[in-house]
Amino acid sequence: MSPTSAELDAADVLAGYRSRFVGIDDSAVAAYLDGNSLGRPLMVTAARLAEFVEQAWGSRLIRSWDDAWMIEPTSLGDRLAAVTLGAAPGQTIVADSTSVLLYKLLRAAVDAQQGRDEILIDRANFPTDRFVVEGIAAERGLTVRWLDAPRATGVRPADVAAAASRRTAVLVLSHVAYRSGFLADLPTITRIAHDAGALILWDLCHSVGVIPIELDAARVDLAVGCTYKYLNGGPGAPAFGYIATDLQDQIQQPIWGWMGAADPFAMAERYRPAAGVRRFISGTPPVLAMQPVKDMLDLIDEVGVPAVRAKSIALTEHAIALFDDRLSSLGAVLASSRDPAERGSHVTVDHPRFAEVTAALWQQGVIPDFRPPDGIRIGLSPLSTSFAELEYGIDAIAQQLREPIG
Amino acid sequence: MSPTSAELDAADVLAGYRSRFVGIDDSAVAAYLDGNSLGRPLMVTAARLAEFVEQAWGSRLIRSWDDAWMIEPTSLGDRLAAVTLGAAPGQTIVADSTSVLLYKLLRAAVDAQQGRDEILIDRANFPTDRFVVEGIAAERGLTVRWLDAPRATGVRPADVAAAASRRTAVLVLSHVAYRSGFLADLPTITRIAHDAGALILWDLCHSVGVIPIELDAARVDLAVGCTYKYLNGGPGAPAFGYIATDLQDQIQQPIWGWMGAADPFAMAERYRPAAGVRRFISGTPPVLAMQPVKDMLDLIDEVGVPAVRAKSIALTEHAIALFDDRLSSLGAVLASSRDPAERGSHVTVDHPRFAEVTAALWQQGVIPDFRPPDGIRIGLSPLSTSFAELEYGIDAIAQQLREPIG
Repeated sequence: MSPTSAELDAADVLAGYRSRFVGIDDSAVAAYLDGNSLGRPLMVTAARLAEFVEQAWGSRLIRSWDDAWMIEPTSLGDRLAAVTLGAAPGQTIVADSTSVLLYKLLRAAVDAQQGRDEILIDRANFPTDRFVVEGIAAERGLTVRWLDAPRATGVRPADVAAAASRRTAVLVLSHVAYRSGFLADLPTITRIAHDAGALILWDLCHSVGVIPIELDAARVDLAVGCTYKYLNGGPGAPAFGYIATDLQDQIQQPIWGWMGAADPFAMAERYRPAAGVRRFISGTPPVLAMQPVKDMLDLIDEVGVPAVRAKSIALTEHAIALFDDRLSSLGAVLASSRDPAERGSHVTVDHPRFAEVTAALWQQGVIPDFRPPDGIRIGLSPLSTSFAELEYGIDAIAQQLREPIG
Repeated sequence: MSPTSAELDAADVLAGYRSRFVGIDDSAVAAYLDGNSLGRPLMVTAARLAEFVEQAWGSRLIRSWDDAWMIEPTSLGDRLAAVTLGAAPGQTIVADSTSVLLYKLLRAAVDAQQGRDEILIDRANFPTDRFVVEGIAAERGLTVRWLDAPRATGVRPADVAAAASRRTAVLVLSHVAYRSGFLADLPTITRIAHDAGALILWDLCHSVGVIPIELDAARVDLAVGCTYKYLNGGPGAPAFGYIATDLQDQIQQPIWGWMGAADPFAMAERYRPAAGVRRFISGTPPVLAMQPVKDMLDLIDEVGVPAVRAKSIALTEHAIALFDDRLSSLGAVLASSRDPAERGSHVTVDHPRFAEVTAALWQQGVIPDFRPPDGIRIGLSPLSTSFAELEYGIDAIAQQLREPIG
């Protein structure tokens, strides 16, 4: 017999961290199950922003560029890399949006792979990944080759091995699939890509901060991800990009902004890219928007990604146990893997009525999200979600399915 | 005889607004003369950010996307357009950085001008404009044709008329030159561009918020600008882009992100651009970073751009009078126009020792900025700068020039 939510919360060594987040005791939010879309703010973040406005912006003023801001895209990138990516310094920037960084890195990669005319991508990728690939393929005269991963699972090494060839310029894959939560075997697939002579670009949006990632050990070429999901950077927080050291001087990104130039304040006549990872920066860094993620990186560093992952697995296991107990008999279908080694930190459940159910749940402060055609994603941000909160949310879903709306 | 700073401050009908900014009474900042690089924060901005973290982010959580955030790139764009750009709704977005938006709009423009192989640009443009043009020309096989505007003046209609031809695809020009502060004749130059069958893209970074701009009346095609200078949006705040209604469905930008797709949450198989100006959006909007600029737009709306411009002219006139009185005899040279109709809101003074002088000034809380090879820019943000503050700064420069450092 499965342990109860109360037992799991009582035994949870990370339970105490939950009180560091804004809104945990907010009576208007009964269960927040969408930290995979937008992480809750940490309480220290409000104080950090107030101090930032007063001091770094309001008092040091333009001098803050010299004090700290100029190197913030790489210093924050290095911090993010050390805490969450398993990456040595000098390979990660924080900049732009995921879509824009994806465009820049993928353009750089395909332009460097002359003689190869395919981009390999999985249909389970998030729309922006698919759309950016489609756009680049159109403008560079390349073919998009689709991996047809089964929705409930995701991309597996054998599928990639069968599709990758000497025509493959770059593979663009998601580490955790946005819909099903399927966790890909990043090291093995990266090796398969390299065996075919291709470069690989991983989208880490749904894994960064909750899954141990070892980009350097796996010899990943390129990666992008966002900081507003499990890194709690706030709505529309800047993205990050990883470019392996060996690759940095061999590829060139297309948006030649001043902050990626060799000496931005030389105001030179001609563009000369900066050495190293800075050449992947384009415009003025989004400094204000970079501040909140620092707090979550501090917290993850304090806890450690392995402990975060352990609680994530416990939460998704509990979600599936609750699904079996309370939702499967109501016609709901599990869309995520039952094997925790194949799962990120959200669980997806399908039911034809879930569009209307989600709208009703939001009204009552139970907040998962809905993904067409019929999926509710139950996002389990390990440091801000309790087992009881999860159970409350599952019960609310069950109640909506039992009592037709209207 | 010129009026004194005290007399000018006493007669300044906008003087009272200065107290709304953070740090005006900060004893560590004796004179802030760089609002043209980074505007001071408004005091209400700290409160706005705190409330944002608590409410829209921390309590409404993901529901805020439906509440307001999805339309924020265009609703904030429309507000910015109405208050500062002379542009009707539906033509302006807030997104990305200036460099990235410039890339997107310029790529869209040159790709639509098939059969024309030149981009016309002024050497006085800011580096990012020149670099982005250089990069796009290289990737699209176009020629960059340089307008050699005299540094102390800037681009004039006759120069443009002589250079524009049936080969010109797009002109990329700065409304106010970043170095000299020269104010271009936007309506006349736009007409000349159109007479040649070219499109025109204006960089408004150094004019937005301090110069009356009438984009619709001048029939401008495209414009970009930043919000962290005279719009006080904070370091690295998002940029804005203007795309004239008639042009929107005729051009296509290259970064096909999900937020520019017809229905972002349909999670469609293929990219189909949104109708209207939304198609120029790529990634998730930088919502947190969009908040501070709202406060400055409210303030400018309250005061009105013509009144802001009147004080800006009074400040730059006073700067030149003080230059004549206290700096010209010390070997400094005025790099800006003496005609206020040819001046934005900063005045540039050159002296071979200004690199070291600026460093010394910053130490003592007098903050202009330095631009190679030898210019100090005296930026005069009209709503947060007093005439006495300006005089204090000029005197500090004079003292540094009289007393050699070290």
